[in-house]
Amino acid sequence: LNAEIVAVGTELLLGQIANTNAQVISSALANIGIDVYFHTVVGDNLARMTDMIEEAVARADAVIITGGLGPTSDDITREAVAAVAGRKLVRDDAVAEQIRTIFERMHRHMPEENLKQAEMPEGAEMIPHEGTAPGFVIEHDGCLVFALPGVPWEMEAMLTKTVLTKLSERAGAASIVSRQVLVIGLGESATQEKIRDIVDRQSNPTIAYLAGGGQVRVRLSAKAASESAALALIRPVEEEIRSRLGADAVAGSHASLADAIGEMLRERGMKIAAAESLTGGLIGSLLTGAGGSSDFFLGSLVCYATEAKRDVAGIDPAILAGPGPVSEEAAAALAQAARSKFGADLGVSATGVAGPAEQDGKPVGTVFVGAVLDGEPEVRAVRGYGDRANIRALAATAALDLGRRLLLHSM
Amino acid sequence: LNAEIVAVGTELLLGQIANTNAQVISSALANIGIDVYFHTVVGDNLARMTDMIEEAVARADAVIITGGLGPTSDDITREAVAAVAGRKLVRDDAVAEQIRTIFERMHRHMPEENLKQAEMPEGAEMIPHEGTAPGFVIEHDGCLVFALPGVPWEMEAMLTKTVLTKLSERAGAASIVSRQVLVIGLGESATQEKIRDIVDRQSNPTIAYLAGGGQVRVRLSAKAASESAALALIRPVEEEIRSRLGADAVAGSHASLADAIGEMLRERGMKIAAAESLTGGLIGSLLTGAGGSSDFFLGSLVCYATEAKRDVAGIDPAILAGPGPVSEEAAAALAQAARSKFGADLGVSATGVAGPAEQDGKPVGTVFVGAVLDGEPEVRAVRGYGDRANIRALAATAALDLGRRLLLHSM
Repeated sequence: LNAEIVAVGTELLLGQIANTNAQVISSALANIGIDVYFHTVVGDNLARMTDMIEEAVARADAVIITGGLGPTSDDITREAVAAVAGRKLVRDDAVAEQIRTIFERMHRHMPEENLKQAEMPEGAEMIPHEGTAPGFVIEHDGCLVFALPGVPWEMEAMLTKTVLTKLSERAGAASIVSRQVLVIGLGESATQEKIRDIVDRQSNPTIAYLAGGGQVRVRLSAKAASESAALALIRPVEEEIRSRLGADAVAGSHASLADAIGEMLRERGMKIAAAESLTGGLIGSLLTGAGGSSDFFLGSLVCYATEAKRDVAGIDPAILAGPGPVSEEAAAALAQAARSKFGADLGVSATGVAGPAEQDGKPVGTVFVGAVLDGEPEVRAVRGYGDRANIRALAATAALDLGRRLLLHSM
Repeated sequence: LNAEIVAVGTELLLGQIANTNAQVISSALANIGIDVYFHTVVGDNLARMTDMIEEAVARADAVIITGGLGPTSDDITREAVAAVAGRKLVRDDAVAEQIRTIFERMHRHMPEENLKQAEMPEGAEMIPHEGTAPGFVIEHDGCLVFALPGVPWEMEAMLTKTVLTKLSERAGAASIVSRQVLVIGLGESATQEKIRDIVDRQSNPTIAYLAGGGQVRVRLSAKAASESAALALIRPVEEEIRSRLGADAVAGSHASLADAIGEMLRERGMKIAAAESLTGGLIGSLLTGAGGSSDFFLGSLVCYATEAKRDVAGIDPAILAGPGPVSEEAAAALAQAARSKFGADLGVSATGVAGPAEQDGKPVGTVFVGAVLDGEPEVRAVRGYGDRANIRALAATAALDLGRRLLLHSM
């Protein structure tokens, strides 16, 4: 079974919002084993919408349309679907009554044009709703066409309660399971070089790469009659990949490096703190992005100015005057300051030049990260590239990764 | 002139990432007056990609493709464009040399397959790049076809430096100028209510709203024969809007609140520091996102754990034991600690409950922010909503905004 997603709305074509609905729907469909071959975005224009929906209906077994179900004159998804299916629009009295009731409950006057939302193509089935915009589904030429509202939470409620159920029934019982191997410290092509033969000989699980911010996600997805059967297909392949990649592969199937470190720290009953310069708080921000971070994260000293490194982190002025604030020595001292000021088990640090201009003769992209668990701190030089935001993201990832590697040897 | 955006990548169809590139490109094209009628997403499949690009080329004056330019075997945008244009792929030796140099500079081994990235359809023009993936542009059937990488920062660099210039030239001499009024502390509908009549009577400039993260961006875009003529159209409308919104509108046409605060601090020769709990480093991270932030940002104490608030920020244990770490008193003390520990002019702070669970009997979404310039600190209670990330973003925005309001009265 394959499906196609059509998002309707001029605000998407003007770049005022991103098409996150397509992402949410795609991810849900992937989970139940339904392939998606195309996403399309089209504006509030009847001719272009009708063309696009016609094309999608011809290509796919199911078309999911989001948006254009509101009460205003530019909401024309009902008209476009009716035109494609060759039906007329009819008003559903029960739906009209529901819309009236919703306005009464909110103690608000209902503009007459809102009753437009009670219209559906003849023969369509209404999809129960929670906002004021009902959805509908209609079958045409063997294709199920769903029309859902564009407001994310209204769309998601209908997706979960109605769309996924109808599509699973039609698709049969297949389960799809995905696991992720997060790879840090190798580039995308180096990762691929190490595991290409495994990828090439696989079709179930399928294996995909996604690179960015100093990491590569290798995603394995298997389809089988049950979840455990799908996992059994993934397991030996995942193990072979992990044994090739060694310590560059983060243990577990975590969405982020911060999640992985959080779990390692929790298992060991340890706490982490940071001291950061060019990352400006990003290391702390990533660690607190992980749920339950108060179990393992104490805090971070963001010492952006050189005098803050001396006065707040207590870095030896001789280091700042000699090797300078962007140096291996400073990265080591910052990691130690993080550990001692917060009383943490693990201290991590980052210092460097994010740009746009060089600093103290050090070029943009110069980055040193540090980590200390017990004994001497470890330091690594990292070459940042790209814009300011990318250099900072790479530095934060490298600092957390160095911490992860120290933890690996601590048990 | 109209353009169409084709994003390539199975990870988009699996819902692993959202198509933010289409949003960024659409917004930039809208700014220079180019209409976008369709966005499409297609997977790493040669037949479907070729069909889709062919269709787009037939419909539009320009097609902007993102993604599929990497070095791996599933990167096939070059092949698809060559097929559509009926050209063969040729290797550009200068580009091959550049790719080698980039790997040398990073002190990394270059896998041989990376040279695939030096291939382009015959007759294509290379688009200068900063990552390892060069882009290209080729004209076919009167349509300009751009191929850009999928990595956002690499894509954006090429968009700004090459794509927009070429498209503006082709579109003719009309100048489009945009200015932005950033509104903080009013919701979208309250903002709209205050200025709806101004918006309704305007067609040049056009006025659009974009809400999120506790702020509303009101964007005014005018089209005229010259930049100064376009600005002259915007100015009286912008002034009227600003006079209606008062201090809720951030002065200047800044992309972010951090940029606006940076300029205010620079004008006054002042420096800022922060002390943050639930935001975990986000306040510092936002401030250092502004270019030239070393002029005005000293650092931040990220005190996530309660003991860090006591030991690192030096908050009176009586406050932590009495009103508690999530309280007006703690927010005031944190703002003062930020100011004194870093020797800053302005200290800002945030403390609260980001969730998922309540803390010390305070419900998720409870947030207090503080700011101190001279005299007594000011504190505000903010009601956070949405998920963890949204609550943290609202808290950081509210803290910076309170700092901005203190600065407003300081000159």
